[in-house]
Amino acid sequence: MFKFPEASGMRSAPLFYLCYLLCVALGLACVLCVFLWNSRWRGGLAWDLTAQQFNWHPVLMVTGLVVMYGYGAVLYRVPLTWGQNKLPWKLLHAAMMLLSLILAVVGLCAVFDVHNAHGTANLYSLHSWIGICTVALFAMQWLLGFAGFLLPCSPVALRKLLKPVHVWLGSSILMLSVAACISGINEKLFFVLKADVNGSQPYSSLPAEAVLANSLGALIVAFGLVVLMILSNGKWQRADPGPEDLTYTSLLQEENDES
Amino acid sequence: MFKFPEASGMRSAPLFYLCYLLCVALGLACVLCVFLWNSRWRGGLAWDLTAQQFNWHPVLMVTGLVVMYGYGAVLYRVPLTWGQNKLPWKLLHAAMMLLSLILAVVGLCAVFDVHNAHGTANLYSLHSWIGICTVALFAMQWLLGFAGFLLPCSPVALRKLLKPVHVWLGSSILMLSVAACISGINEKLFFVLKADVNGSQPYSSLPAEAVLANSLGALIVAFGLVVLMILSNGKWQRADPGPEDLTYTSLLQEENDES
Repeated sequence: MFKFPEASGMRSAPLFYLCYLLCVALGLACVLCVFLWNSRWRGGLAWDLTAQQFNWHPVLMVTGLVVMYGYGAVLYRVPLTWGQNKLPWKLLHAAMMLLSLILAVVGLCAVFDVHNAHGTANLYSLHSWIGICTVALFAMQWLLGFAGFLLPCSPVALRKLLKPVHVWLGSSILMLSVAACISGINEKLFFVLKADVNGSQPYSSLPAEAVLANSLGALIVAFGLVVLMILSNGKWQRADPGPEDLTYTSLLQEENDES
Repeated sequence: MFKFPEASGMRSAPLFYLCYLLCVALGLACVLCVFLWNSRWRGGLAWDLTAQQFNWHPVLMVTGLVVMYGYGAVLYRVPLTWGQNKLPWKLLHAAMMLLSLILAVVGLCAVFDVHNAHGTANLYSLHSWIGICTVALFAMQWLLGFAGFLLPCSPVALRKLLKPVHVWLGSSILMLSVAACISGINEKLFFVLKADVNGSQPYSSLPAEAVLANSLGALIVAFGLVVLMILSNGKWQRADPGPEDLTYTSLLQEENDES
């Protein structure tokens, strides 16, 4: 029978919840900032092939690919979930990641639509190369995770092989998302903050919009670092089943045995 | 007496060396690409307050803050070093990191000098915010590492407290360096690849320079991911001294006991 690692993990629970609170707060601050930036300075949101449709791109990428992704990634680390049947948490993890992926794909559609309607080239900048690779890797990661950890017919050997790859790729995708967001915000600010465009102040004079959007970038980085800190702390990991439990032939059987 | 963890670690040595080879090759490819980009397309390197001095900025940041930093970070993971006295490897780690920091600081000086000479504003873009924070964090990390792990008078309690922070901050600085490089390369290409500047092709038409510099960005990301993979694999970590060894009062005593 599965034994839960309460001895070492639970002792550090207060510190965990402090970091978790910081993670939740930074994520909410990112979402707030990206909405504020695009509603207050970029003309708001719409789905009409104009710049307002483009604005969905940063909003959805930050909300989905960074914040929802980060929240989903640290879910198993919440000590509250350790003493319980893993299956509902696994389903919630998969659902949060799927929602994150859907938001990211809609965020990509927003920008492709606007580019195609205005004859603007797609996928030429380094930002777009990193961004599209991130979403492609994420889609692959989700499908492999679903096949390996949720399908009842998935063999134990595959799950054992997949787990370290899933964990490493999970952190890597977050790192790529952060890099894509930073380069995207930086690029957007150079595009729109020019002295000769609608009498706006140039980026170099750091108008209020630039300070807010730069701060958004700093918040995204801080959020990414806190998520990676939570993920990398061995004391906060839900323990694997012991060797005797690895004879399970399917996830459902594992869940039955655990419950 | 310190015991070396040959049993589990050494078994995975061939896979480690494969990853290490990939890491070394990707790092060399990054250095090659950033030199090629700046010598072939950006007019080469000089220290004369012109665009050629600016070119030292990407060259030194990629070579120092990414590649040398990554090489220094994975040094302890080389199994060859495990059976030996740790002090020389610790000194080499500190020296590689110091060289990386010096290259990064000279890389910053290159761009500040050029900006100041031409009346260009400093530190307004998100790229510059992330970059300067990365170098500041790195300097703090090096100083704390030196004080905590190399000064003979450093108390054991400080070392124990510092180690997980040093490890987490080490990976975080690499993530920040990658984000800073990606946003910097992206920004530079938008600046210089415009249809109306010296008859050059715009970035959106993906001329050869854009393909090379985008590929440099992709190589930097790949290098970062391989370094993080090596760092995150528990089997490839040099084991800590056992509890009885933590009674050492200084690093030098630890080294003497080990040797």
